[in-house]
Amino acid sequence: MKPIVPLLIRAQSDEYASWLTCLPQALDGIADARPVSDLSEAERARAEVAIIANPDPKDLATLPNLKWVQSLWAGVERLVAELPEDGPRIVRMTDPQMAETMAEAVLAWTLYLHRDMPRYARQQQERVWLEHPLKLPGERTVGVLGLGKLGSRALARLHDNGFNVCGWSRTEKDISGIETHHGQAGLTEVLSKSDITVLLTPLTQETRGLIGKAALTTVKKGASLINFARGPIVDDSALLAALNDDRLNHAVLDVFAIEPLPEEHPYWAHPKVTVLPHISAPTVPATAARIVAENLKTYFDAGIIPPAVDRTRGY
Amino acid sequence: MKPIVPLLIRAQSDEYASWLTCLPQALDGIADARPVSDLSEAERARAEVAIIANPDPKDLATLPNLKWVQSLWAGVERLVAELPEDGPRIVRMTDPQMAETMAEAVLAWTLYLHRDMPRYARQQQERVWLEHPLKLPGERTVGVLGLGKLGSRALARLHDNGFNVCGWSRTEKDISGIETHHGQAGLTEVLSKSDITVLLTPLTQETRGLIGKAALTTVKKGASLINFARGPIVDDSALLAALNDDRLNHAVLDVFAIEPLPEEHPYWAHPKVTVLPHISAPTVPATAARIVAENLKTYFDAGIIPPAVDRTRGY
Repeated sequence: MKPIVPLLIRAQSDEYASWLTCLPQALDGIADARPVSDLSEAERARAEVAIIANPDPKDLATLPNLKWVQSLWAGVERLVAELPEDGPRIVRMTDPQMAETMAEAVLAWTLYLHRDMPRYARQQQERVWLEHPLKLPGERTVGVLGLGKLGSRALARLHDNGFNVCGWSRTEKDISGIETHHGQAGLTEVLSKSDITVLLTPLTQETRGLIGKAALTTVKKGASLINFARGPIVDDSALLAALNDDRLNHAVLDVFAIEPLPEEHPYWAHPKVTVLPHISAPTVPATAARIVAENLKTYFDAGIIPPAVDRTRGY
Repeated sequence: MKPIVPLLIRAQSDEYASWLTCLPQALDGIADARPVSDLSEAERARAEVAIIANPDPKDLATLPNLKWVQSLWAGVERLVAELPEDGPRIVRMTDPQMAETMAEAVLAWTLYLHRDMPRYARQQQERVWLEHPLKLPGERTVGVLGLGKLGSRALARLHDNGFNVCGWSRTEKDISGIETHHGQAGLTEVLSKSDITVLLTPLTQETRGLIGKAALTTVKKGASLINFARGPIVDDSALLAALNDDRLNHAVLDVFAIEPLPEEHPYWAHPKVTVLPHISAPTVPATAARIVAENLKTYFDAGIIPPAVDRTRGY
């Protein structure tokens, strides 16, 4: 009898349908993966591992014997906050395809800023024909905050495309061929030299409000910001103030403290803000399902749980 | 006494100023480069070569002994039309930096279309939070029309960034590792399989109206178009019709039959058109001036005129 693996997935309907196709297919022969609502109490009691994305905590509470959960998301800050410390271990999604897609997004929206697309879009609205001086990528510095798998891959991709790059993380990290900084002094250094700063840090106690009033006084005059990490890493009122007094040129925001972004939020209509609906690097069900299948196979064959979130670090 | 080289440059004032700094500096010791209006009749009669960008034909006519002209532009269709066939030979600007800048522009606006930026911009205007399914670059085919230095470099750059690519030129050309097509049948093949088609052909008798009603019936349903070549390669009314009946998804247009684009033109306010003010790959005066200096030095030292435009081909 194959082990039962409950699915606790809350998503838009087409994404949900895609998971319900990909997961049972990838897990064929490894486990019996079914929506938690389809399981009897006895089946729920047997489950040692669940596959989750934005799960309802009430559903998780119906699974008393979970040893670990496989998240379909890379960001797990809500799980860390909600699950008890002695609860199941949390395994984040680390899909190489997701790192590639994120690096592509970083490159795409860096080029968007580098080639002045927001300014030319405003000019089109006003029927203005005006060329602005071109800068070469070697005349721009792009700073990436966060040097995990996503940040490292993004830095490599930017570097391959001719930009000067530098990276920052809370604790010291070396990346071959890339200038890196760490700690508070390092953050000031990176913010003060970057024409474009990209946020790719996990949301933890240390990074909440990282880009606040103090940090925004140290940014290079006229720089731009891209937030592809989590909304609360940025202090919204400090960011709006920096945009309004022209210290910052533009912000590309894909993540927000409340999602969907509330209809009355000033970001929507701000001429210096590009609002995206959390689309920088969605999990691709087909490739992510294969990662999940490998993790589950290793567990059921050998009892090994994949590397889990460090609850004190928060990621 | 250094040879006299007249400058016939019409440009926006800051660009003009930049040329007047860079050119005499790069030509120091090689030639005496001065605006044609500063030259006496005797000096004009001595000039064997002139440096030109969008020149006034009346100024050119005051230089009776020109053997060749060095254009600061890559596109020379107006010169070819205006200069007599037995007039001075025409040397186009072929700056490796320009090919790199054009390849960057092709990548930037391909990613703009690939990552659905026009759609997310419309959603922001309407305060709509809605995620659309992500496509991987390997699920997109980008076709490049024109396989000269610009087209070849653009294809390599797109390929490096994960896109499927194919190229087309009027006559057969091989590019290592890239699928290429030619002639009328090849054009239909490329248009019918490309999700994004990029125009980088020179404007000649053969390419004028190349993207007209007939070609636009063969494009893949829902494809997009980028024109970084010359306006008249596209038939504007046929393009508007294809956008309006949803055969085409979007057009990024940087070049137009009349520039600046007239204020009443329907492109400005069309929701499926991105209008750019001819900015895809401006000549960078500092690097272009070095190319000009090398060409002039070879001529004055050894009497060799650089490869010139083939007047029957038109480029």
